[in-house]
Amino acid sequence: MAQIRLALAQLNVTVGDIAGNAEAIQRWAQHAADRGAHVVAFPEMALTGYPVEDLALRSSFVEASRAAIEELAAKLAAAGLGHLVVICGYLDRDESTFAHGAGPKGSPQNAAAVLHRGQVVARAVKHHLPNYGVFDEFRYFVPGDTLQILTVHGVDIALVICEDLWQEGGPVRAARAAGAGLLLTINASPYERAKDDERLNLVTRRAREAMCPLAYVNTVGGQDELVFDGDSLVVDEVGKVLTRAPQFTEGLLTVDLDLATTTHGADEYAGIRVERTVVSDTPVPAYTATRSGVAPRLEEEAEIYTAVVTGLRDYVHKNGYHSVALGLSGGIDSALAATIACDALGPENVYAISNPSKYSTDHSKDDAADLAERTGLNYRVIPIEPIVSTFLDNVPLTGVAEENLQARIRGMIWMGIANQEGHLVIATGNKSELAVGYSTMYGDAVGAFAPLKDLPKTKVWALARWRNQAALDLGETPPIPENSITKEPSAELRPGQLDIDSLPPYDLLDQMLEDYVEEDAGAGDLIAAGFDPDLVERVIRMVDAAEFKRRQYPPGPKISFKAFGRDRRLPITNGWREATMQGHHPVAPPRTAPPGEGPRT
Amino acid sequence: MAQIRLALAQLNVTVGDIAGNAEAIQRWAQHAADRGAHVVAFPEMALTGYPVEDLALRSSFVEASRAAIEELAAKLAAAGLGHLVVICGYLDRDESTFAHGAGPKGSPQNAAAVLHRGQVVARAVKHHLPNYGVFDEFRYFVPGDTLQILTVHGVDIALVICEDLWQEGGPVRAARAAGAGLLLTINASPYERAKDDERLNLVTRRAREAMCPLAYVNTVGGQDELVFDGDSLVVDEVGKVLTRAPQFTEGLLTVDLDLATTTHGADEYAGIRVERTVVSDTPVPAYTATRSGVAPRLEEEAEIYTAVVTGLRDYVHKNGYHSVALGLSGGIDSALAATIACDALGPENVYAISNPSKYSTDHSKDDAADLAERTGLNYRVIPIEPIVSTFLDNVPLTGVAEENLQARIRGMIWMGIANQEGHLVIATGNKSELAVGYSTMYGDAVGAFAPLKDLPKTKVWALARWRNQAALDLGETPPIPENSITKEPSAELRPGQLDIDSLPPYDLLDQMLEDYVEEDAGAGDLIAAGFDPDLVERVIRMVDAAEFKRRQYPPGPKISFKAFGRDRRLPITNGWREATMQGHHPVAPPRTAPPGEGPRT
Repeated sequence: MAQIRLALAQLNVTVGDIAGNAEAIQRWAQHAADRGAHVVAFPEMALTGYPVEDLALRSSFVEASRAAIEELAAKLAAAGLGHLVVICGYLDRDESTFAHGAGPKGSPQNAAAVLHRGQVVARAVKHHLPNYGVFDEFRYFVPGDTLQILTVHGVDIALVICEDLWQEGGPVRAARAAGAGLLLTINASPYERAKDDERLNLVTRRAREAMCPLAYVNTVGGQDELVFDGDSLVVDEVGKVLTRAPQFTEGLLTVDLDLATTTHGADEYAGIRVERTVVSDTPVPAYTATRSGVAPRLEEEAEIYTAVVTGLRDYVHKNGYHSVALGLSGGIDSALAATIACDALGPENVYAISNPSKYSTDHSKDDAADLAERTGLNYRVIPIEPIVSTFLDNVPLTGVAEENLQARIRGMIWMGIANQEGHLVIATGNKSELAVGYSTMYGDAVGAFAPLKDLPKTKVWALARWRNQAALDLGETPPIPENSITKEPSAELRPGQLDIDSLPPYDLLDQMLEDYVEEDAGAGDLIAAGFDPDLVERVIRMVDAAEFKRRQYPPGPKISFKAFGRDRRLPITNGWREATMQGHHPVAPPRTAPPGEGPRT
Repeated sequence: MAQIRLALAQLNVTVGDIAGNAEAIQRWAQHAADRGAHVVAFPEMALTGYPVEDLALRSSFVEASRAAIEELAAKLAAAGLGHLVVICGYLDRDESTFAHGAGPKGSPQNAAAVLHRGQVVARAVKHHLPNYGVFDEFRYFVPGDTLQILTVHGVDIALVICEDLWQEGGPVRAARAAGAGLLLTINASPYERAKDDERLNLVTRRAREAMCPLAYVNTVGGQDELVFDGDSLVVDEVGKVLTRAPQFTEGLLTVDLDLATTTHGADEYAGIRVERTVVSDTPVPAYTATRSGVAPRLEEEAEIYTAVVTGLRDYVHKNGYHSVALGLSGGIDSALAATIACDALGPENVYAISNPSKYSTDHSKDDAADLAERTGLNYRVIPIEPIVSTFLDNVPLTGVAEENLQARIRGMIWMGIANQEGHLVIATGNKSELAVGYSTMYGDAVGAFAPLKDLPKTKVWALARWRNQAALDLGETPPIPENSITKEPSAELRPGQLDIDSLPPYDLLDQMLEDYVEEDAGAGDLIAAGFDPDLVERVIRMVDAAEFKRRQYPPGPKISFKAFGRDRRLPITNGWREATMQGHHPVAPPRTAPPGEGPRT
């Protein structure tokens, strides 16, 4: 056995910002060295950020990544860190002599570099390229076919990248055959509800398969619609957790490991060639190991809330902004969104605007003002009646068109103020509304980011209650007025209007959406599950017709498996109706929310 | 040799509308039978439409397609068409006993069915699954590994699907080894500029490789952002064109072929198993062949114009609408968009709105009215000054925020009228503007469809001139006022404003965009090509910063290889700056058009 002090750098990087990311990597490598680590690992594509998407197709970007990894090796050595073994994800390209089956010669690759004494001494390439959900890697990369085994202080470390761990067989089995003493995987694995449990199960299983300890380092922070939760961890050869990082927090996890020394196992396994690079085969002199901690997991509501706060904060900051503007109606959605914005950016950076109309109730106006006072955000009131009435004098509109007009004048006010004062606008719609198209395009749907986009309405209420309780637990004032949580939801675009006039009760709607949207169940499945057939037809019709609106909605942090956004790609012109449904319209299905319109029906 | 009368049905189907598409297939099969065809082929996924995108992941949809193809076979036989061999693309799923490497057991497949005497007698599965540009097939489908050879009246017909023809090796080589008498390929191959030339070259080359005639049937019509140009054709074994269908037109192409009879070639080629299905090995009695025509190709401007008209018409109609609304400024973009709308839908279905402000010039107002008179579209004038002034009384805005406000009030008027009267709004921005973010979100960017979205400004002028000349050639009044074509472009949002104040001249800008956007050239390449380094930096900065605006822009017909839309996927938070550029900002690059704002800078 041989000792190794391993550091895992759970970093928050920015896609495309190679220079800034390289600086961060060097800074954290220094921290690792300061803590006496022998090896430090950075996440998948830490140098370029993840996902780079079409930047991978720009050869100047690929070459910049390749040059930067060499430069980083030199800089680390120049800074006195040449002795440290640094493993870092980056974007490379295939240098095989012949064109690869999956792409032309020189195609991009998702790779890991091993930096030591000023050089890139080895590299590993991802084998399994995920191309489902939020992933499009088969589109951009060609796969590797070699397992890199790195001998460091007498220990064989097998390097694999993210999806290589999730797929059966492949490099994990090869690592076992090769007799690895440690399986190290670098990742950019996005957050989903309860993904930490799933990840732990996987890591445990793979450690047992590889018959050696497994170290897992993950990205943290928001990148457009993705939120990375970190959750880096190390388990022993039977899957027992040795150390685990906090979720959603940047930091360095260090652990002392006692590992099997080089065994010289197989040089090939199931078509995967094993490549060996010896950095050092001399074990380090024995030292007293320190024990590492296991950070507690967040409870479900805390975890989701933190994911949303993280997603919003990084979206705003990484786009060069510091403040947001939003409309505050007194309802639960804008109340929760404003609270999240205050937690993400500080209340002094949140600019809330109340835009009462003649249909707004007194309690709505009071609740908005109450939240402003509780949180300390910037608050102003601009009634829309004079603008609405001048508009209608010049363009007579009635019914849904008039309802939409009110929402659009509000959106125009928020955008105007944001343009004038330099804020980003956030949209406050939730996943249930988006699913059925219950919003006004260019009205309440304006904005750069939509923090609640992937939260069903019932989860919005749950998070509001959780946040208030968390405040009470800390002896603070609950930010959200109780009335905003308990009152009946209403768009207040006509007298006495309630959501329930157009939609089923949210607890029922959210159950149906869970089946139809998240689980891809058919109408028949929903009816078999006991939902009323007429209601099933009505809800499915609304969901199918709202695709255009969803595409035009701002991005938001992804929480669940099937978020509306880049991982959900439905046709806009969609003649499909579930076979069990009545009233089939072959070419021109009636739409509750047609492209180009934005009625609340 | 044996005679066969082959019919190719160049169909315009709708994604998801299985019942409607099946009816159309039956109707066109009847036409083929009426013309004495022995075999009729329908395009790739004609039964479901193409591309089905995430509908492929809904098992009720896959099962509906599978049931519908069986039902179609029965209905054809019941209608007296059982003798006709019908080849039709549809969505199936993998029925292998074991899970496929590329996806779980039962994964969707892009397949072709052979229908005869009431039964599905054979099927073929696509081998090569394109996953670049507009294609995401690797995401949805698992590939086939068998070549289907269908013996009809003594002739061996090898069936392949679309990309199978575009990739080297694979099923085309297997068809040759198997001794096919005819290579038949069914396609849903979207239009791109000059794609017909590329297609002809490919078809010629593959016919020579397969050493037999090749028949190619393609989809036609618009589906969301894709436009299919048809261009079905048949070539002989040396690639000589025997018949070719008109572009962008639904119809049936029939041809009499004299083909080699069954040779019983190889049963396997390079891992591809050859599966043989004998429908009939008796040649038909000799008959007098008729000669088929070769439709002339459209000239470049005519082809692009027709693609845009087709895309707009089908988008409107397939979404259940009949009319569109748009703002008419007197400028070239809205003039061309209005003319295209008139050609697509008839001037009686086009509702143009002029919204002069205090900055609008007299010639703009006159030019808008002139176009209305020339085309006969519905026209009204609604000055925005009273609304702007009431708004500014309540929300004081200046500078860019005030400029955006004017554009947004116009957008709100168009949406209000469209909501009230039941039109779709079309946005009139061009590709050059979109590339650099020269538009106002929720202002001129509102709408369900943007016909000019993939046309650079210089092409907008060229199409306008071409359309006017085409009118003159027919002895009609040119629809577009000469002044709209010749005047200096201006947004007219402040006194004396010209595009040239913010942007380089369009001929220069379009050349740079061609390199940077279409060709993925880097800043260094552009400078090496002779563009001014400061201008390169400025343009690239604008393009990179405008990704959010482009994502929020309505869809439009795809004309070029790199349209902005579903096939272009850049990160919004993008810290990448070309290495040659000065003023690097690692985390928060300055944006000329930040997310959430919509300045014309």
